[in-house]
Amino acid sequence: MSSPLKIALAQINVIVGDLAGNADRIIAQARTAHSAGVDLLVTPELALCGYPPEDLLLRPAFLAGCDEQLERIAAELADLPGLQVVVGHPTAREDGVMRERSWSLPPCLNAASVLAGGRVLQTYVKRELPNYQVFDERRYFYSGRDAGLLPVVFDVRGLKVGLLICEDAWFDEPAAAAKAAGAQALCVINASPFHVGKVAEREARMAERARATGLPLLYAHVVGGQDEMVFDGASFAMQADGTLAVRAAMFEEALVVVELDPSTRRLAGRIVPEPEMEAQVWQALVTGVRDYLGKNGFPGAILGLSGGIDSALVLAIAVDALGADKVRAVMMPSPYTADISWIDARDMAERLGVRYDEKSIVPMFDAFNAALADEFKDLPLDATEENIQARIRGTLLMALSNKFGSIVLTTGNKSEMATGYCTLYGDMAGGFAVIKDVAKTLVFRLARWRNAQGPEIIPDRIITRPPSAELRPDQKDEDSLPPYPVLDAILARYMEQDESIADIVAAGFKPEDVERVTRLIKVNEYKRRQAPVGIRITHRGFGRDWRYPITSRFRA
Amino acid sequence: MSSPLKIALAQINVIVGDLAGNADRIIAQARTAHSAGVDLLVTPELALCGYPPEDLLLRPAFLAGCDEQLERIAAELADLPGLQVVVGHPTAREDGVMRERSWSLPPCLNAASVLAGGRVLQTYVKRELPNYQVFDERRYFYSGRDAGLLPVVFDVRGLKVGLLICEDAWFDEPAAAAKAAGAQALCVINASPFHVGKVAEREARMAERARATGLPLLYAHVVGGQDEMVFDGASFAMQADGTLAVRAAMFEEALVVVELDPSTRRLAGRIVPEPEMEAQVWQALVTGVRDYLGKNGFPGAILGLSGGIDSALVLAIAVDALGADKVRAVMMPSPYTADISWIDARDMAERLGVRYDEKSIVPMFDAFNAALADEFKDLPLDATEENIQARIRGTLLMALSNKFGSIVLTTGNKSEMATGYCTLYGDMAGGFAVIKDVAKTLVFRLARWRNAQGPEIIPDRIITRPPSAELRPDQKDEDSLPPYPVLDAILARYMEQDESIADIVAAGFKPEDVERVTRLIKVNEYKRRQAPVGIRITHRGFGRDWRYPITSRFRA
Repeated sequence: MSSPLKIALAQINVIVGDLAGNADRIIAQARTAHSAGVDLLVTPELALCGYPPEDLLLRPAFLAGCDEQLERIAAELADLPGLQVVVGHPTAREDGVMRERSWSLPPCLNAASVLAGGRVLQTYVKRELPNYQVFDERRYFYSGRDAGLLPVVFDVRGLKVGLLICEDAWFDEPAAAAKAAGAQALCVINASPFHVGKVAEREARMAERARATGLPLLYAHVVGGQDEMVFDGASFAMQADGTLAVRAAMFEEALVVVELDPSTRRLAGRIVPEPEMEAQVWQALVTGVRDYLGKNGFPGAILGLSGGIDSALVLAIAVDALGADKVRAVMMPSPYTADISWIDARDMAERLGVRYDEKSIVPMFDAFNAALADEFKDLPLDATEENIQARIRGTLLMALSNKFGSIVLTTGNKSEMATGYCTLYGDMAGGFAVIKDVAKTLVFRLARWRNAQGPEIIPDRIITRPPSAELRPDQKDEDSLPPYPVLDAILARYMEQDESIADIVAAGFKPEDVERVTRLIKVNEYKRRQAPVGIRITHRGFGRDWRYPITSRFRA
Repeated sequence: MSSPLKIALAQINVIVGDLAGNADRIIAQARTAHSAGVDLLVTPELALCGYPPEDLLLRPAFLAGCDEQLERIAAELADLPGLQVVVGHPTAREDGVMRERSWSLPPCLNAASVLAGGRVLQTYVKRELPNYQVFDERRYFYSGRDAGLLPVVFDVRGLKVGLLICEDAWFDEPAAAAKAAGAQALCVINASPFHVGKVAEREARMAERARATGLPLLYAHVVGGQDEMVFDGASFAMQADGTLAVRAAMFEEALVVVELDPSTRRLAGRIVPEPEMEAQVWQALVTGVRDYLGKNGFPGAILGLSGGIDSALVLAIAVDALGADKVRAVMMPSPYTADISWIDARDMAERLGVRYDEKSIVPMFDAFNAALADEFKDLPLDATEENIQARIRGTLLMALSNKFGSIVLTTGNKSEMATGYCTLYGDMAGGFAVIKDVAKTLVFRLARWRNAQGPEIIPDRIITRPPSAELRPDQKDEDSLPPYPVLDAILARYMEQDESIADIVAAGFKPEDVERVTRLIKVNEYKRRQAPVGIRITHRGFGRDWRYPITSRFRA
C-alpha cells in the first residue's frame, strides 16, 4: 500500500501589487512544504498579485510583472523535486499567446497554474466570474468557458486533481467538467471575503459540491485585510460525502497539511473549531486594522476618545491590533461634555495603557462663532454649531496625524453611517473607518464580549449609559433616532434584504420609523460617498457593494 | 407616392428614480409629437428610470414601479392613435413572466418596449452589456442574447424598424440579427456619457454600423447631468451610406424630427454643427452643475474664492449655470494671501455681480496653533500648518452651507486631484467637485475661451500670474510639482493610456518627473476616495472609472 499523499494549503497573507514580495512568500512556503515531504502545495486565488487588484489589472505592466514573477517561482521549484505548486495569478496570455487588447473586452484571465520542476505545466482559467456585491470580475476577466478553454486535471502521484477557482465551485458546471475530464479530487483556490455567517455558507456549498461530484474537495483560502475586505482563512477539506475533514484557524497564516489516502481517497487532518460570531467579528476588525496600517506603512493610530461606546470599542480593537504603544487617544471636550465622559475616557485609557491627552475645543469654537456672528446673529442654533465642534476635533486629529504620521481612525458605526448621524469632515475625518459596518446593537455585543474575555477593559458605564453625541445640552441619540434595536432591524431589512417600506411596515414596524430611517439612508448618500474606507463584516456594507446614486428621487 | 414617415427623437432630461415624473415627461413628449403628426417617438435608454440607476435596480420595489409606470404610459397612448412610442426601461419580466431572483444572477434586463394604442406591443432586450470604464451593466442586467431572446423588428406604416440599445450598435451581431429579422432601418436608444471627443467617436461608429448593414440609423440620446456623468444629447440620424443626415444641439432638450422617405429610405432633417472642444466642455460643466443642484434641490451654491484661476473658473461656471443671484463667493485670507489675490477676487466678484464676503482665517488659525503649541513646539512648520488653514476654510464654508442650505462647490482641478496637491477636509470639503476632471492646462484654456465669448469676466492677472496655494510665504505650485504642461502630459499617459513609467520615460519625459508624478498618484488614492463626486469630461476620470486599491505596493 502506498503512503498517503500530502497536500498543503498555503493560507497566506499577501499584499496587493507586491508581486516580488508575494512570489517570495510563495517560494518560502514551497521550501517549507518540500522539507515536510509535501506532494502538492496550493496557494489561494490570485495569490501572486493579491485580491482584489482592481484596476491594476488594466495596466499592461502589471500583467507583465505577474507573468515574470510566475516564471521566477517556477524556476525556483527546479530545486524542489517532487513538489507541485498551484499558483493563482492573472495573465493576459492564453495558451502562451498574449491576447490582443481591446477597448471593450476584459484585459485578462483569472488563472491557476500548476508549477513543477522549473516549469509551468498547465494553466486553468476561471469559468464563473462573480460580478455582484463587492465583485467586479467581469470588468477584468473573461471566462475560460466563454473562451472555449478546457478544464485542467493534473496528476499528483497517480491522483487526478481537477482545478477550480473560487466561484467555479459555487456552480455545477466547472466541477462536473473537471470530473468528466477524469478528476478524482477537486482543488479549489479562493479569495472569499469574510462576512458574518460566511464560514457556514461556504462549507455548506462546498459540501454540496463534494456530494454532487462524489469527489473529495480541498479549499485553499487567503487570509488578511485589503482595504474594505477581510479574508478569514479557515481553509478546509471535505470528504467525498461532504463531511468536514480538515479546517484551519481563522484570521492567521497557516500551512495546512491534508493527507489523502490514495486507495480510499479519504482525507485526514486537524479540524479547528469555528469561533463564535463575536469572536469572528472581533478578529476580522483586528485583522483589518492591523493589515491596513501595516501594509500601508503607518507607524501607529490616533483617535478621538469621547467617553462613548463607539470610540471605546475602536480603541480596544486598535490596541488588540497594534499594541498600546502604537495607539494614542485624544479627548477633546466641548462645552457640552459631561463629567462622566471625562472620567470614563481617562479610566479606559489608563486600563489599556495608551497615551491619552485632553485638548479643549472651546477656544477654536469661540473663534469660529465670532467669525460667523454677523451672519448667524438672529438665527437659532442648529446642526451647524454641532458640526463646527465635530470639525474642530477632526482638524485637531488630522493635525496630529499630519505632524507625526499616525493614521486617524474614525469611530462611527454602521447605524450612524446609514442615517447620517455623524459629521462629514468632523468625526468622519480619518483614514480608516474601523466599525463602519458594525451596527450599534452589535457594537454593544462586541463590547460586552471583549470585556468577558479577560480583564474588563471597557468601563461598564460606557456600555450602560444612553448614547449621546454631546454636541448640545442634554442631547441623546434616541431624541433623533428610533431606539437602536428598531433602527438596526429596519436597516438590515432595507439594506441587506432590499425590502421596501411597505414590506418593512408589514413586518410590524411603525410606518413613521420606517419612513424616517429609509429617508435618512437616502439623503445621506453624499456623506457616505466621502467616508473613509472601512472594514466590511456583513453581507452588504457601505463600500464596493453599495452603489447608489446620490441624485435619485426614488422612495420605496 | 406616400408621405414621409415622421420619426421624433425625444432628447429629454430625466431624473434617476423619478419614475412617475419621467413617465409624465415621456407622455408630454408623446402628446407634442402626436400633435405634430409624428408616427414614431423614440425615447433614450432607460428613460423611464434615468441612467444609471445603479443599485436601485437591485430593489424589487424599484422594478415593480418601472413596470407600473410603463403600463401607465401605454394606457395614455390609447388617446393618441397612429403614434408608436419606444420607451427605454428596466424590467424583471421576460415575455411577461417575472424572472426568479437569485443571489448570483443579475436581477433584470435593459429593455426597449414599443407602445401604441394603449398596449405594450413588443419588448427588445439589450444584448451587449458594457462592463468597463464607468459601466457596470453586468452587475444589473442579463443579455438578451444569452437568454436566447430574439431581435425585435416592428412596423411603422410599412417600414420595418429594428430596435437596438446603445452598446448593441457598437458591435456587429445585434444589428446583423435585426437585419436578418427583416429590419429596413435601425433605431438605437442611448445613454452614452460625454467625454471630450465622444461625439466624433460615436458618429463614426454609427456610420460604420449603417454602412455595414446598409440601413439608415436613428440615434436617440438623453441629455443632462447625473452625479459624475453628463449626457450631451446631440441625437442624430445617419443615411444608409453613413452620411450624417440630422444632428440635434448638445446639452439641451429637444424633440428632434427626422423625415424618412418610404420609397428611398433617405432621411431628412436639420444638422446642428458640433461646437468646438472648449465650448463642449464648458456646456458639460454648466449642465453638470445645474442638474446636480436642481435635481437634488439645492437653493444655490457657495465657494471659496482665492484670487487664483481654479476658483475663478468654478465661479464663472456656477454663475453661467445658476445665475449670479444663486451664487456666493467667500474670500478667506490667510497670513500668506498676497494683496493682488484680494484685489483680483473682489474684481471678479464685482464683474459677475455675485455676493462676496471676506472672512479672515487668522483668529481660528491662532487658536489651533495655540492648542497644538505644546505638541509642536520644537518642530519645523510643514504641511500640517498649511492643512490647518485649508481646513478652517472648509469648516467656514460648510458652516454657511449648513445654516443656509447652499451647496459648497469645491474648486480643485484634475492635476491637483491626481497629485494630492489639495487638502482633505480643507479645499476638498464640499458637495460637488466641478472641475475635478479638468487638467490644469485645460483650466487655462477654458478661462481664456470663456473670456473670449463676451465681456471679460475673469481678470487677466488671474490667468497670467503663477499659480500658488498661498499657504506659506512665497509659495508657488511649480516648487512642488513639474510645470503643468509636463505634469498633465504625464497624467494623461499614465491614467488614460495605462502607460508604464518606462513607457513614459521612453516618450521623452524626465525619469525623476515621471517617478514623482506616478508616485504621487499612487499615494493619494486615499484622498481621492474621500473626494466629492464631480463631473467627468475625459475618457477616464477619478470616479466610477478609476477603481484602484488604496493598499497597493505596485509601482510601474
